Order: sequence, then C-alpha cells, then structure tokens
Amino acid sequence: MTFIDMLRGATARNDSLLCVGLDPEPSRFPAGLRGDAGRIYDFCAAIVDATADLACAFKPQIAYFAAHRAEEQLERLMRHMRATAPHVPVILDAKRGDIGSTAQQYAIEAFERYGADAVTLSPFMGFDSIEPYLAYHGKGAFLLCRTSNPGGDDLQSQRLASVDGQPLLFEHIARQAQGPWNRNGQLGLVVGATYPAEIERVRALAPTLPLLIPGVGAQGGDAAATVRAGLRPDGPVVVNSSRAILYASADEGFAAAARQAAQATRDALNAARG
Amino acid sequence: MTFIDMLRGATARNDSLLCVGLDPEPSRFPAGLRGDAGRIYDFCAAIVDATADLACAFKPQIAYFAAHRAEEQLERLMRHMRATAPHVPVILDAKRGDIGSTAQQYAIEAFERYGADAVTLSPFMGFDSIEPYLAYHGKGAFLLCRTSNPGGDDLQSQRLASVDGQPLLFEHIARQAQGPWNRNGQLGLVVGATYPAEIERVRALAPTLPLLIPGVGAQGGDAAATVRAGLRPDGPVVVNSSRAILYASADEGFAAAARQAAQATRDALNAARG
Repeated sequence: MTFIDMLRGATARNDSLLCVGLDPEPSRFPAGLRGDAGRIYDFCAAIVDATADLACAFKPQIAYFAAHRAEEQLERLMRHMRATAPHVPVILDAKRGDIGSTAQQYAIEAFERYGADAVTLSPFMGFDSIEPYLAYHGKGAFLLCRTSNPGGDDLQSQRLASVDGQPLLFEHIARQAQGPWNRNGQLGLVVGATYPAEIERVRALAPTLPLLIPGVGAQGGDAAATVRAGLRPDGPVVVNSSRAILYASADEGFAAAARQAAQATRDALNAARG
Repeated sequence: MTFIDMLRGATARNDSLLCVGLDPEPSRFPAGLRGDAGRIYDFCAAIVDATADLACAFKPQIAYFAAHRAEEQLERLMRHMRATAPHVPVILDAKRGDIGSTAQQYAIEAFERYGADAVTLSPFMGFDSIEPYLAYHGKGAFLLCRTSNPGGDDLQSQRLASVDGQPLLFEHIARQAQGPWNRNGQLGLVVGATYPAEIERVRALAPTLPLLIPGVGAQGGDAAATVRAGLRPDGPVVVNSSRAILYASADEGFAAAARQAAQATRDALNAARG
C-alpha cells in the first residue's frame, strides 16, 4: 500500500486530519519519567496508544531521538506503531538534504532501517537530491516549502527574477513539486500554519499535493483557518500538533490528557471542513 | 580552542589544505572487511591513522553511519580522532536544517554527543535555524551555499529580484554569512569544487570566511583551480576528498594506498598555493 493510500485510509477511518508529532523531550516528561532519556520509547508508545484512533498520521522528529542516543528506541517505536496502528502512516521528520550518493544513505535510513512511510526533505540542493527517495516507489516525500519559523522569510520569500511570473522561492518550489519533480506522484509539501494566506497560495499552485502543516497548537497556528486554506477534495492536508498534545499534562494522567488534547484538535479541524 | 584556531593550527602543522572525508560504504571496503557494517569503525580508524599528519581536518558524513545503525561506531571514531589526532579539527557533515527548538536538539547531537568541532548546515529555513548552533561559542558552522551536484542550480542559482544588486541565491547567502548572520565569527560556507568561477565569486563576497570545498577527486573538481579561486591570506579553504582516498585500493594495503592518495592530493593543493 502506498503512503498516499494509507493517508487517505487513516483520514477516513479515524475521521481525522490530525498528525500527532512525536518530539520527545525528557525534561518535559511527566513525573516518574522526567529527565530519563531511557524512557523515550515508553513515553512515545503511551502517546501512540492513546491517540491511534484519532490520528491520520504519526510524525516522529528524529532530532529528539538523536540528541539522546535513542536510535534503538526509535526503531522500537516504529515497530510498535506498525503493530498497534498498522493503518496509520508514519512520516519521519528528518529534513535531509544532500547529494545523490549521500541521499541514498539517508533513504536507506528512513525507509529500510526505520521503515517510515514518508519522510520530510529539504529541496535546497535541487531535484537530484530528492530523486533517491523517489526510487522507493509508494513512499512519500514532503519537501520543505514555506516554513512557519520567523526566519522562514529569509530565503523562502525571496522573489525570483528569472522564473516566469517572478514567483517567490516557496511558490517556485510548490510549482516544481506539483509538476516536473513529481515523477511518480510521491511528493508533498511542508507549509507552516502561521500563514494561512500562504497555505492558500501553495494550494493554488499545487492543487493535488498532500500538505503537511506544522504549527497548529504550541506554535500558534489557527486550526480552522489552516484547514480552510489547504484542504480540497483532491488535495489532502495533514495538520501536525506535537507539544500541545505530548505535554498536555505533566502528571501521571499524561496519556489521557494527550488523548483529550488530540480529540479537541481533531474536532476543531473537522469543524472547519464544513 | 576554537574551531577556526584548530583549523589554522592543523593547516600550518600538517602543511595541508586537505580535509579527509569519511564516507564509509561497507560494499567498497577492502577484502577482509568488505560488506561488514560492523567494521565501519575499523576501516575509518585505519584511514585516520594513515592520514592524520596529512590533513587539516576530518569530515565524517553522518548518513553513511546512520544507514548502517553505526552511531556507536561514529562515537567511537570521534573519540579515536580526538585521541590520536587532537590537533586536527573534525567537521560533522550533517547538513541539518530545522526550526529553533529542533535545531537545538541537532546541536546537542553534533557538539555534545559526538563532540564535533564544526558542523555543516542548510540555510533554507533562515537565520533562526542557524542560531542555536552559534550558541556553542567557538564551534564552527558551514552553511550550504553553492553545492557541486547538477541539481545545485535548481534553487541556488536563482536570481533574487528584491535584494540590492539582484544577486543569485547563493551569492545572497554568502553575503548574509559574511555579514549580519556571522555574529560570533563562527560561520563558513560550503562551495562545490566543480565551479571554480563560483568559488571566486563567493570568495569576493565573503573574503574572510572559511570555505569547505567538496568535489575534488572522485567528483571531478580541479585541485589547483579550486585553491587559486578560494584561498586568501585571511580566507582559509578546506578542500575535501573522500572516495578517492578511502577507496584508493580494495586490497589489504588500503591504508597505505589511502595515505599515498592523500599525500598526492595535499601536494597538488599545495603546489597551487604558489
């Protein structure tokens, strides 16, 4: 089954546009686990179990594992998600970007070692830095397009003088990803939730690509505006929330609190579908 | 000691502009080690021992370790380099690029977990995605500027309509890195060796930044043209060669062959210093 089929399936089955982001920070873990990097798996697995029927995807952010020497815990978590929520696709958030021969190694890491269904990538080094991931037919690849951080403007909002219509850099990326770069229909785009007008602009340029939209919740994006700007009958959205769910409570009821936060976010997103 | 001091020290002591890139591919290992991902450390340590007096830096490429579940071997290799070549700085080639809170995790990975002296980064997400690394005073951060792969053109050579003088994107990055982004003098730039004219252009815009120049050797860049284009009395260059050294021989004399290849490349680079 391809990533896009899994995504459509989980979106329908769980009636959800919500992606649960797994950014484990031991210092923010609930009492009993707090500060213990050896419990990253336990914490994340509890979140997965509490939200598996509410999410259209899970998105582990690999930096949070790498900082704590927790690669084996991430491998275990990937297996756990596959076993307990086989219908929910997993997007490995790694934002890799390197030349072909090195990109092949990162593709092995994402798709073979961790068994991810999709990965996030940086397009800065151009199409041939994306291509090795597309050799894994059916896997998804979300390219950074317009990111939600303040510095996202620095390069992404530069206007390109020599491209037809003088698009902004992120608009150019959206167009390339919808068109010539999307050889096997595997591409999607990452577009931050803090700028709904820009989500709308990206959607106009990339009418059918899945949009991965981080920044709802802790980062301040508006759930309803995000869905209205990005969702189309043929254009799926995956709206990510991490910290607002993971750290909804710092006591032993953290998993139930996470479930409640996920449910509230899912409902807010669904209400905006109209 | 700061990265830049270490780099100047090793360049002088070893009379070398050569960075030895560590991109271990078990399938290309010499007979006896071939195909055995458990021997990545042994292979790399032998290369380090054979070239420690010839290199101004070592550059492990983390993807080659991650693809083979070899993080512990990389940790061990970092300790080995520190112990046997304490005067040679280590650049962790990771090309990370993410928002602030995630970038902090990657900075922990590079500087605390692996103890690297410098790291490579993607500037695509803007200055605030670089800032967390600069909090580690004295550490170096090389930003991707103009990469040597064919697709490097796709975005990096776009002309920016709204920036003074309408620079190309990579020229804009060079200017930002030499100027406002370089708050504590920690930044450098990655510029591919396949385009000496562009190295010269970057050097004009960033007269004092260290340039990390991959692409000499297996990737076809011309060593002499590279040095002439990039090296200035106040502007250091670090010229990387990986595969041409690592895989100089596929038999048991691989370390001696690597030493010979490193020596030849070092000499070719030095000859161009004039």
